[in-house]
Amino acid sequence: MNVSRPLAAAGVTAAMERSRRLLEPALREAVAGLHPWSARMAGFALGWSDADGRPQTGDGGKGVRPAIVLLAAEAVGADAAAALPGAVAVELVHAFSLAHDDIIDHDERRRHRETLWKAYGPGPALLTGDALLALAVAQLATIPEAMRLLSAALTELVHGQSADMAFENRPWRGPNAVTVEEYTRMAAGKTGGLLGAAAALGVTLGGAQPEAAEAMGRMGRDLGVAFQIADDVLGIWGDPAVTGKPVHSDLRREKKTLPVLCALAAGGAAARELSAVLAAGLEDEDAVRTAARLVEEAGGRAAAGALAARHLSAALRLLDAHLPGAADLRALCESLVNRTH
Amino acid sequence: MNVSRPLAAAGVTAAMERSRRLLEPALREAVAGLHPWSARMAGFALGWSDADGRPQTGDGGKGVRPAIVLLAAEAVGADAAAALPGAVAVELVHAFSLAHDDIIDHDERRRHRETLWKAYGPGPALLTGDALLALAVAQLATIPEAMRLLSAALTELVHGQSADMAFENRPWRGPNAVTVEEYTRMAAGKTGGLLGAAAALGVTLGGAQPEAAEAMGRMGRDLGVAFQIADDVLGIWGDPAVTGKPVHSDLRREKKTLPVLCALAAGGAAARELSAVLAAGLEDEDAVRTAARLVEEAGGRAAAGALAARHLSAALRLLDAHLPGAADLRALCESLVNRTH
Repeated sequence: MNVSRPLAAAGVTAAMERSRRLLEPALREAVAGLHPWSARMAGFALGWSDADGRPQTGDGGKGVRPAIVLLAAEAVGADAAAALPGAVAVELVHAFSLAHDDIIDHDERRRHRETLWKAYGPGPALLTGDALLALAVAQLATIPEAMRLLSAALTELVHGQSADMAFENRPWRGPNAVTVEEYTRMAAGKTGGLLGAAAALGVTLGGAQPEAAEAMGRMGRDLGVAFQIADDVLGIWGDPAVTGKPVHSDLRREKKTLPVLCALAAGGAAARELSAVLAAGLEDEDAVRTAARLVEEAGGRAAAGALAARHLSAALRLLDAHLPGAADLRALCESLVNRTH
Repeated sequence: MNVSRPLAAAGVTAAMERSRRLLEPALREAVAGLHPWSARMAGFALGWSDADGRPQTGDGGKGVRPAIVLLAAEAVGADAAAALPGAVAVELVHAFSLAHDDIIDHDERRRHRETLWKAYGPGPALLTGDALLALAVAQLATIPEAMRLLSAALTELVHGQSADMAFENRPWRGPNAVTVEEYTRMAAGKTGGLLGAAAALGVTLGGAQPEAAEAMGRMGRDLGVAFQIADDVLGIWGDPAVTGKPVHSDLRREKKTLPVLCALAAGGAAARELSAVLAAGLEDEDAVRTAARLVEEAGGRAAAGALAARHLSAALRLLDAHLPGAADLRALCESLVNRTH
């Protein structure tokens, strides 16, 4: 079975490229409807131009969510084009959420570039996020079954983001500490809602029955938890040259990420030491590095990996049961969890 | 005819109170579906509680937009309850836009209280705005003809806000100065889009034909321009004790408000002096006060009032033509332009 991963990876790359070719003209047409000032900032956010508006073919993101929409439509026997408004909508919602997240988290770098607010200021970036969301809604406003899915995803997204932000005010240890179960619900909403909506929009716009959409929603929630855990792991141990984000930024911000929660829950000497380091505050680079080492020693990295694998398996089982022929979509979902950036 | 204004005002007050009684339980039920942390901030934004979450019956805003929805539904012979989801949606969109506007404009006071971001921080306020918008969309996601109206209003709102923000980078004088026509288009989108959607949602959910909704959309755009001009006038000459906002804040921020644009366009000695004062920058209170005086001397206040009256008349003509029996709605629209706060 050693041969399967490279083959699947080749399939994913080709499928993503095909998706991108279909998506981009439709996405550009949608963005062209914005106020020119917003359209320019949206073009930067989507990786089409630099901060001065000069065309760029840089890293505009992986386009995972629209690819899921289009591959899911194909998996139910439809032409991918039938699901294009859904693909445009989810990519716009994703861009909206990144624009606002980066403001909220004060993140200055994304995809090897300045973030939108860093390039244009927080006010304009906030408004551009709103414009991207309004544009997403406009794509599906007249397709009630699709609008219902998008609206549910939006609700889950903001609910998950609120939970994530509310975690910041919670302690690392004690009766009020964030549990793995709470983390899982948060990630299922924050990250899984839109992934699930992407798959559900694909099969719905592809003409499948509501049961398939419902199953894809559940699939996406499991995939989202696995995806978010992979993100957490990369946020601590990923190579900044590959991820395009500063190293250890989640740790430095003392975010309640899963590897740390698992490490603390593991007990033992490393967990106790980690607890003390966190209690003292991660003020300098040394403390951050020590914390990362202790999370790994306490088994947080391994436990996170195991939990991600479990949720990925659950997602793949749902996929196999409901869309048995979806080889490209399956390979894409796997690649999201086993990634380096 | 001297008797008509007090009578109409009494009608407006009663109609607004009736609307508020119908709206509030539905709005509270919707907000209760948010994450508890967001729901608390939303409760502050809507005037239901203070920053510590203690119940309050303060100034939660006038509830103009939901009242328009409900009165418009009644005007086409429907029960106001038929349009309740539309009323909830427009009030949520309005609350969303205020939450984000106050962050963008760094405004610290609204309705005699701290603004949302001032009370909870910009990140949480930004996310609460997103949650309010997601909730608004959820109200109408399964009613396609209503969703289409809400989506169009959102698109106009962000387009108008972008135009308004882009004005800030434009000069006061010269070939690139903002024209009254540009201002009018901006205000029709930023303020008129949602007012028009409110009236259109009312008649649509009340069972009227699409032509009535289309006319109400146009009515709202004219009303929006008149409303925005009234806002601009209050922003310069309104009594802070009544408006709940600091005096002269628009001037201090050198916003391209209509009275100033009209004053500069008027020519004459006062306009020239105003132009010089603006060119020097409104650095201190004296300069701001001088600018306000010169705007009035140059005829900016009178011209703005005349333009507001013209757009209000156009809105009332559309209302009389399409909803001839809508006395309360008509009185409400008039009161929006002839107001002190």
